[in-house]
Amino acid sequence: MAHMNPHQKTVPVEDFAPPSWDSIKQAHARIAPKIHRTPVLISSSLDKLIGANIFFKCDNFQKTGSFKIRGATNAIFSLTDADVAHGIVTQSSGNHGAAIACAGAWRGVKTWVVMPKNAPAVKFRAVESYGAQVALCEPTVTARNEAAARVRAETGAYLIHPYDDDRIIAGQATAAKELLEEIGDLDAVFAPVSGGGLLSGTCVGAKGLRPNIRIFGCEPERADDAYRSLASGTLQCQESSDTIADGLRASLAPRTFAILRKLVDGILLASEEEIISATRLIWERMKIIIEPSSAVAIAPLLRAGAVAALNLPPRADGRAPKLGVIFSGGNVDLSSLPF
Amino acid sequence: MAHMNPHQKTVPVEDFAPPSWDSIKQAHARIAPKIHRTPVLISSSLDKLIGANIFFKCDNFQKTGSFKIRGATNAIFSLTDADVAHGIVTQSSGNHGAAIACAGAWRGVKTWVVMPKNAPAVKFRAVESYGAQVALCEPTVTARNEAAARVRAETGAYLIHPYDDDRIIAGQATAAKELLEEIGDLDAVFAPVSGGGLLSGTCVGAKGLRPNIRIFGCEPERADDAYRSLASGTLQCQESSDTIADGLRASLAPRTFAILRKLVDGILLASEEEIISATRLIWERMKIIIEPSSAVAIAPLLRAGAVAALNLPPRADGRAPKLGVIFSGGNVDLSSLPF
Repeated sequence: MAHMNPHQKTVPVEDFAPPSWDSIKQAHARIAPKIHRTPVLISSSLDKLIGANIFFKCDNFQKTGSFKIRGATNAIFSLTDADVAHGIVTQSSGNHGAAIACAGAWRGVKTWVVMPKNAPAVKFRAVESYGAQVALCEPTVTARNEAAARVRAETGAYLIHPYDDDRIIAGQATAAKELLEEIGDLDAVFAPVSGGGLLSGTCVGAKGLRPNIRIFGCEPERADDAYRSLASGTLQCQESSDTIADGLRASLAPRTFAILRKLVDGILLASEEEIISATRLIWERMKIIIEPSSAVAIAPLLRAGAVAALNLPPRADGRAPKLGVIFSGGNVDLSSLPF
Repeated sequence: MAHMNPHQKTVPVEDFAPPSWDSIKQAHARIAPKIHRTPVLISSSLDKLIGANIFFKCDNFQKTGSFKIRGATNAIFSLTDADVAHGIVTQSSGNHGAAIACAGAWRGVKTWVVMPKNAPAVKFRAVESYGAQVALCEPTVTARNEAAARVRAETGAYLIHPYDDDRIIAGQATAAKELLEEIGDLDAVFAPVSGGGLLSGTCVGAKGLRPNIRIFGCEPERADDAYRSLASGTLQCQESSDTIADGLRASLAPRTFAILRKLVDGILLASEEEIISATRLIWERMKIIIEPSSAVAIAPLLRAGAVAALNLPPRADGRAPKLGVIFSGGNVDLSSLPF
């Protein structure tokens, strides 16, 4: 068993229950005064193309340019003054780092962000612009964890994991909660999956309001650990990935894996080509900027027959399916676009 | 006098009164069921940068990707069946052409669009996608007028000028009317100026609801005919321009010049560099896609001291000025971005 994934070996997946509905309502009350209630947009041309009525929850317009501020704000404002006395440290490919830096500044505490060297320049600038200190590391899961532990040991900072944390998951759940509060009769919701914070939050946030709704995770083929984990029933960690969806290079944690096993209805994969072409399509048709990680949530729906293949129960009103799509962020480096 | 501008020679500018407030209300009632009521967005980071509270009227999200559908729809649905029996012809660098093509399709009539050869590929595709026939011409005012006259003679199509037309101006005025209906106490509104349809409509639409509001036109330095016309008091036609703001290469017409002389409070110029950098700034900060022609409306405000230099009357509430900016369109060719 020496080569087994360390997560598998040490953490029985049954140990983690999803955050309670109460904790999500509390998170929402805590963060609502600080963040945007982002708009839900529609596009008749995309509806026609896909053969469904799609409602896009636009967290690309969220503070700091991504949904990550939801969980970061909930986590940081849940802590005691003693907890944050020596600052906060986290690890992030960018958006969670910017969110921790921003929410840390709101709370008035020092922040450190461990970032992989291959994160886009625009994300480094964002983290630094909120006043955090950046610590670079190699782009692997192990290197990230080690660097974060080192900063923590040196500074005494409080470590907030980007997704293996109930306060983070409860915060991310508020995006789906807002979407369902606005469009109550969705048949399914699609969200990108990386470490699984947004996706497990989406499961809890959406199913809390509409228990029979289907939730699908969307993942790059080049970073398909969630797909493989759920298919195999064992947590499959991916050490590194070079997918263009730079926000989706992390792997599930024991906690998010456990929640997804219970609540998610499937994982859909997207190739690099599909991700790039979906990004461009959204920019052109909707005139909004989403990052490739967001486009992963719509890319699988753009294949011919994709909606029919989901085999959703027919709607009582006889209409085309009503689908929610969570656009997770809009932070792109305009100097190095993939098209 | 042989070299005098033909417009000056033949058309006394005093002949044109602005469209009445009633005609704008009628236009709005006529087009509202067919077009979007576009959102008004704000950005705290841009407010901080500029030192004002700015409200962006986002006609980049409008049907066909620009405000032009407002005037085109009003004009086409004002016509009798006899008027449109042989179709409709217009001349356009792109957005008005797409709008005429789209509104023509809604009405069920044939359309021809005369376009300059140097219009962006994305604008050709848009015009054709709505079913219009494209007739190419050299990128000069004279060539456009001649080509449109030729199509008209050959087909019997009804000619709708892109801006020298009260029905078009009344339609374009509905953007400012919507903006003022939503944000009633603006101190000033900024709109790009090309042929002057949007800007003269903005004057009438905004001042109809708030008589003392200031209206500023924003224009590329490389296509500064409106600036020169208003400065000199005589209509200055610009035969051609290669500004990156491809929607702003036309010149004022006698009608729009007359209206602007009466109602506009000033013309602000933007260099090519300022237009490109403003476009990028809006994409990055607001996560929305605007075309460079839209960015012209914000570019002059990004200079240090620009708002103070406007010398607006102080607000009764003692706060920073409340400014409206009209983003005219979002049709860009993602294959050839200027950054």
